[in-house]
Amino acid sequence: MPRTAEVLKVGRGAQSPPFLVMDVIAAANARAAALPPGAPGILRMEVGQPGHGAPQGAVEAATRAMRSGHALGYTEAFGLPSLRARIARHYLDHYGLVVPMSRIAVTVGASGAFPLAFLAAFDRGDRIAMATPFYPPYANILESLGMEAVLLECGPETRFQPTLALLEAMDPRPDGLVIASPCNPAGTMLPPEELAAIARWCHANGVRLVSDEIYHGLSWDTVPEASAAAFSDSAIVVNSFSKYWCMTGWRIGWMVLPEDLVRPAECVAQNMFISPPHIAQVAAEAAMDCTEELEAIKAGYARSRALLLEGLPRAGLDRIAAADGAFYLWCDVGHLTNDSLEFCTRMLEGAGIAATPGVDFDRARGGRFLRFSYCGVEAGMAEVPVRLSRWLERDGPRS
Amino acid sequence: MPRTAEVLKVGRGAQSPPFLVMDVIAAANARAAALPPGAPGILRMEVGQPGHGAPQGAVEAATRAMRSGHALGYTEAFGLPSLRARIARHYLDHYGLVVPMSRIAVTVGASGAFPLAFLAAFDRGDRIAMATPFYPPYANILESLGMEAVLLECGPETRFQPTLALLEAMDPRPDGLVIASPCNPAGTMLPPEELAAIARWCHANGVRLVSDEIYHGLSWDTVPEASAAAFSDSAIVVNSFSKYWCMTGWRIGWMVLPEDLVRPAECVAQNMFISPPHIAQVAAEAAMDCTEELEAIKAGYARSRALLLEGLPRAGLDRIAAADGAFYLWCDVGHLTNDSLEFCTRMLEGAGIAATPGVDFDRARGGRFLRFSYCGVEAGMAEVPVRLSRWLERDGPRS
Repeated sequence: MPRTAEVLKVGRGAQSPPFLVMDVIAAANARAAALPPGAPGILRMEVGQPGHGAPQGAVEAATRAMRSGHALGYTEAFGLPSLRARIARHYLDHYGLVVPMSRIAVTVGASGAFPLAFLAAFDRGDRIAMATPFYPPYANILESLGMEAVLLECGPETRFQPTLALLEAMDPRPDGLVIASPCNPAGTMLPPEELAAIARWCHANGVRLVSDEIYHGLSWDTVPEASAAAFSDSAIVVNSFSKYWCMTGWRIGWMVLPEDLVRPAECVAQNMFISPPHIAQVAAEAAMDCTEELEAIKAGYARSRALLLEGLPRAGLDRIAAADGAFYLWCDVGHLTNDSLEFCTRMLEGAGIAATPGVDFDRARGGRFLRFSYCGVEAGMAEVPVRLSRWLERDGPRS
Repeated sequence: MPRTAEVLKVGRGAQSPPFLVMDVIAAANARAAALPPGAPGILRMEVGQPGHGAPQGAVEAATRAMRSGHALGYTEAFGLPSLRARIARHYLDHYGLVVPMSRIAVTVGASGAFPLAFLAAFDRGDRIAMATPFYPPYANILESLGMEAVLLECGPETRFQPTLALLEAMDPRPDGLVIASPCNPAGTMLPPEELAAIARWCHANGVRLVSDEIYHGLSWDTVPEASAAAFSDSAIVVNSFSKYWCMTGWRIGWMVLPEDLVRPAECVAQNMFISPPHIAQVAAEAAMDCTEELEAIKAGYARSRALLLEGLPRAGLDRIAAADGAFYLWCDVGHLTNDSLEFCTRMLEGAGIAATPGVDFDRARGGRFLRFSYCGVEAGMAEVPVRLSRWLERDGPRS
């Protein structure tokens, strides 16, 4: 029998913080499972995941590929040429931009794009700036790769987005900058002229820009959508089929790479991923032609958004970040709590509403913020303000 | 317009070596596409990818899931509980081992398991040993994470596998050890008593063992199959549905984690992957019940193996590593060439046979080795010795 081990080490990765929303989802699942039959269900606003699955055309293409006896083996590391070409065409159709397909890399979701982008562009010890609040995996992935996330505190006066002034004031200058517009969790956007100014400043100052455009396609006409690819040839653009195209669980996304990072990122991808999932690539290519179905889904989000922007303030949540895009509302609940995690737990129990505590997205100020996601079932979203007011009147604020 | 950038940096990841076999595949594709109509095709022996697709039951389960309107959203980071339970049962059925499903982590292929395993178990600067020849992404992934691969040169006298003596002689002792049995590229296995001795030595000496068991299920009765999980509670076992289950392009695999690494690896997975592809998980679970179909495919590999082990020596390739498992033959062609890359290029042109040059797998000695994969179409495999002798007689050895 084996002897007892000497202290077997655990790597620094062992200190990687969890992505808390995953734990919130588990709590909501448990609460839903424990409800007595006939009780009103849990209103799920904690997940950044469309209630609809992939569009019909995508499902049909995947089914056809499987039925035809297609072996669905590895593809090239950067994906099927036909999908890369289709994505390149999307840049022309959607943004009026010419992007050669050689610069498109299909990835295992946007998640799979970040390690490739970070490893190709940065070194251990490099400092990469980002606004807070932010999508936690940016910093967690950077930190597990030995890079440093430098957090720039941003508030409602700049739509929780970084500004050129903030970047110019940084000393030392960072090695990279991650931006997200529309932003998760705040749902805010960078106006195109500010995005352009930031992209040009980064390019001119040797700061590698990584622009997360995963919520493009989901914006509400308060701010026009623009891609960083329009303003900089050195920026890395990350996108995904998860959100607008409703394909979260398929794990399929892409990058637009600057010429100098194409081969480095390809080498990392060959080693770390071999290829993105083949069936998801087939489905994604078809999804890009399902605009009618997807626009109908988007119209549902727009209705939920309007209803919540009207109803939440009446229920007492009236400090909401500019709801420019994505399907999130970032609410300042500082008048009700300083402990958003505890507040979410009580709200789940008392009001049957699952939301994400801000601490996941903002280590400093997250105790007084909540993220509500409104991409779930529309009928449920309509019930949120009613349940929330009733609960807040009864036993909402505690501290 | 943007000014010219100051020198925009490229990260160390930019020096990540390519996984050469991907380039060989591209060359073989190009050669095949350039052949005149009616010409004999290219015999594909460069890919470690079964010629068959996923078994029928897997395809049916995936089709059913899609047709039923299942949204196929994110799963938990470690995968569907039903799949984790089914994999746990596989340990009981196949190895007679009790492994709780809480220790099973479903991953984005075996490729997706390695960054999780390495980040959870090791730190930057840690030294991780492995025998040469080896699967190149082990070292390339370690190096891109800031860890060091320490190569132990192994030869035919130890089946190209590490030995206890080799490990005991290491000074300083490594932080980890990666083993693979059956091994890619050599196709050799560690006899169970040697695997047990190595696993126990690692456990007793605080060396984290990572056992790549991706070719389990494909062995040829020269050496019995055993899992490192049988001999060590601290080892990480990596496996995949790509090989025995013929599901390469689905990107689905798993790990058996030691208790102390379950939560650390889960946190890294939440951040880096969110979840493995959902449809692939559904298909993989069904694939585990398709034994009859898979055993028939395996019988085809066995026939190809027998035929090549008989025919290659007659053609002049008589120094073949013990062909214990996987679907590879590792041939010493030192009597024919010292430049396996050039030899492969000529063999592709002259004999229409695509194989992988050894340089991908052994930086020092790879110039005199080739890897032949025999998982391709059986009829093609039968033609290999004939074409090879004809070509070698005509214009084979050059130097």
